[in-house]
Amino acid sequence: MSQNSGDLTAERQDLVVEDLEDLALGEDYALNPEYIDMVVSAADRGDTERLRELIEALHPADVADLMAFLSADYRQEVLAFIAPDALADILSELDTNIREEVLEQVTPAALARALEDLDSDDAADLVEDLEDDKRDAVLAAMSEIDRAGIRTSLAYAEESAGRLMQREVMAAPQFWTVGQAIDHMRQAGDELPDLFFDIYVVDPSYVPQGAVALSRLLKTRRDTPLAQIMEPVSEIPVDMDQEEVAYIFDKYHLISAPVTDPAGRLVGQITVDDIVGVIQEESQEDILALAGVSDAGRDATVMGVARSRFWWLLINLGTAVLASSVISLFEGAISKLVALAVLMPIVASMGGNAGTQTLTVAVRALATKELTSVNVWRTVVREVIVGLFNGSAFAICVGLVAAFWFHDPMLGVVIGMAMVINLSAAALAGIFVPITLEKMGYDPAVSSTVFVTTVTDVVGFFSFLGLAVLILL
Amino acid sequence: MSQNSGDLTAERQDLVVEDLEDLALGEDYALNPEYIDMVVSAADRGDTERLRELIEALHPADVADLMAFLSADYRQEVLAFIAPDALADILSELDTNIREEVLEQVTPAALARALEDLDSDDAADLVEDLEDDKRDAVLAAMSEIDRAGIRTSLAYAEESAGRLMQREVMAAPQFWTVGQAIDHMRQAGDELPDLFFDIYVVDPSYVPQGAVALSRLLKTRRDTPLAQIMEPVSEIPVDMDQEEVAYIFDKYHLISAPVTDPAGRLVGQITVDDIVGVIQEESQEDILALAGVSDAGRDATVMGVARSRFWWLLINLGTAVLASSVISLFEGAISKLVALAVLMPIVASMGGNAGTQTLTVAVRALATKELTSVNVWRTVVREVIVGLFNGSAFAICVGLVAAFWFHDPMLGVVIGMAMVINLSAAALAGIFVPITLEKMGYDPAVSSTVFVTTVTDVVGFFSFLGLAVLILL
Repeated sequence: MSQNSGDLTAERQDLVVEDLEDLALGEDYALNPEYIDMVVSAADRGDTERLRELIEALHPADVADLMAFLSADYRQEVLAFIAPDALADILSELDTNIREEVLEQVTPAALARALEDLDSDDAADLVEDLEDDKRDAVLAAMSEIDRAGIRTSLAYAEESAGRLMQREVMAAPQFWTVGQAIDHMRQAGDELPDLFFDIYVVDPSYVPQGAVALSRLLKTRRDTPLAQIMEPVSEIPVDMDQEEVAYIFDKYHLISAPVTDPAGRLVGQITVDDIVGVIQEESQEDILALAGVSDAGRDATVMGVARSRFWWLLINLGTAVLASSVISLFEGAISKLVALAVLMPIVASMGGNAGTQTLTVAVRALATKELTSVNVWRTVVREVIVGLFNGSAFAICVGLVAAFWFHDPMLGVVIGMAMVINLSAAALAGIFVPITLEKMGYDPAVSSTVFVTTVTDVVGFFSFLGLAVLILL
Repeated sequence: MSQNSGDLTAERQDLVVEDLEDLALGEDYALNPEYIDMVVSAADRGDTERLRELIEALHPADVADLMAFLSADYRQEVLAFIAPDALADILSELDTNIREEVLEQVTPAALARALEDLDSDDAADLVEDLEDDKRDAVLAAMSEIDRAGIRTSLAYAEESAGRLMQREVMAAPQFWTVGQAIDHMRQAGDELPDLFFDIYVVDPSYVPQGAVALSRLLKTRRDTPLAQIMEPVSEIPVDMDQEEVAYIFDKYHLISAPVTDPAGRLVGQITVDDIVGVIQEESQEDILALAGVSDAGRDATVMGVARSRFWWLLINLGTAVLASSVISLFEGAISKLVALAVLMPIVASMGGNAGTQTLTVAVRALATKELTSVNVWRTVVREVIVGLFNGSAFAICVGLVAAFWFHDPMLGVVIGMAMVINLSAAALAGIFVPITLEKMGYDPAVSSTVFVTTVTDVVGFFSFLGLAVLILL
């Protein structure tokens, strides 16, 4: 493979820039591995002209992707060939670890220029990642207006609507007509956001009264008053958590929404492209949290990754020792009938899997607000019936397996009973643990798994071994 | 609680419609449980006037939410009070199970009218859910143009760009100026999409050459040619999978994109609001698949839910029996030293957890295309080192616990060695299983877990009990 791609790379040194653009992305629209090889080999050859062409042929998002696939040395070489006006966009796309590394290498002056090109939300995100002295230097190199804007953004809580919004909006008084709005936009130019989708119609104290989509505006006669075609808006309070903001955007299919201060005045807007990122982030967090990992990123050090997983394993060790101490209560029984040791993991493992199924569904239903006080009892009853049903079905399967394997029908009965008990316990724990954690204000995705598997391990071993002592010995 | 809310409901019968709107949503912007109680109690009292007010005060998305929280009888009552022009929007928002139920109760004529209000993608989605005779009746009741449009949509594969797109687009020839485009839009009115964000500039054979954002158009002088302000576009082939489409939208922060047929001609557009739904759906699928559940929906029957979980549990039973048969190889050893039975679940459980951590990270990295042939070896090496590192750390912890618990230092050594072996196996399986499944064309989220835990159970029991036989007995 590497032999082959080496040849290809050599062959392709005569490709012109348009060809490079076609070659950059693979069929799956991700950056082509071969293209990354070409970058590495141009860097190794010291072919700076080629390196510049290769980098200039890429969209900023793909340059960011390229950086993530390269090691730190190559990254530094690539960085030297990024055009100053592309720097801002690339910086906003980089993974956090790499961004911090790159930010250290860019001069405060270059950074200040790049930040002035960005919307206020993206600029604030970058400034936040800077170390204190560098932050001061960069802010000092910016214009007073931009500096004040970034300071305002950073004053809002992390992951709040205020941090997500851009301050640039297109607002119009209620008495304007379509024609007046269009003429204003043509003149205002740079004061307006780079890209926007709605005009917010405001009253004299700047409180939003409605919104007019640009496509609606363009389909309407010039003399129509905005007040006549505006539609009601969902206002986003500036201190709302970004998860709530994403929920509202998704629920009402919003493209943009006005952000208001506690007095109800328009202070900025959030657009859907920021929300797509939040939605990705939040479900990513849930997936990883359920498995007990925090996202250390592509470029994390081995020690960083090991540490991010250590604590979850340590908590699970506590659980496992607890389960073992339940087993140790029955050492006498096991030494009399070793079949118990052979079969006991089946009961615990089936319980663990059934519990994980229930809790995953519950965690998602809580996250999407499909599980609330209205249907909580209906859901609990349903889960318990499902637990009893699958418990009974597997009681028969496992009971038959055990009875034939060890030629002992009563052993089959015992493991079957334990299976019904443990799958019911799994259902109860799977639904009540996440609901209780949520009620107590914890994120149910983060800690439910360990509680539920503790229940299924302990109940599984205790019911199986306990019933064996009562019935078999 | 229900006593109390009964009183509140009675007290609040004098609320007017504006008050109802304020009351509809709770602080978390989800439908207020109390509001649902009010609907139920109005239905119980037969207070049709109140019921109508309660339903009319809600946004279509919230009516759909209300329906999901009600039982089928109440749903039927609510349905009677939905205004014909609100029906289309509410239908697009309903959960699949409920939508099918509601569609059966609406007459073909009413449905045909509702569908004509929707964008072609949403209309096709609804028609697809109808049973054959009803579908024919509904299509027959529609205008020829709308009917042909829906037939075309349905001819594209499910989950393809063709199915996701709407056929209505705003296209303009290259030689038009900003002013001509604006004048055209003001005249075209109904032929244009309901809501759009970009004008696609096309050549005479309708091949997209670029796009102009409406906000850009409005900021530009009327005599500027579109060709001068258009930007390059990412064209979406009509047969592209929706997961790829979502990847492109997310990567390039797109708001809308032109969809092209195999000849490169513009056939429709996809807008970001459809993509937000796809992103939610795809990560939801991954979360549930990792836990071995298919989403049966809020309103699924108990049997439906039980069945959706049965198969995964059955596969896991196979795994558990396999692990048990490994244990049964060592029955002799266990009967001599019962401590082995007490400790063995610790080794298996720690391996299972470490394996799940690695595989979850790998599954996500594959889904986001952060793990490719470029960095696969680097990732494997990193995971194995993490496995060795955490394996050694827990070897010491668990070894000490075991040695003190059973007053047997060599038992501590044995379990420590088994721990290093199993956490390394967990790392290898956790990374190679999803990569191999992906290479073979399977979805790694769906089946990785069972393979990885089989490895960690078998290796865990075999290494611990095998080493015990070699060293202790």
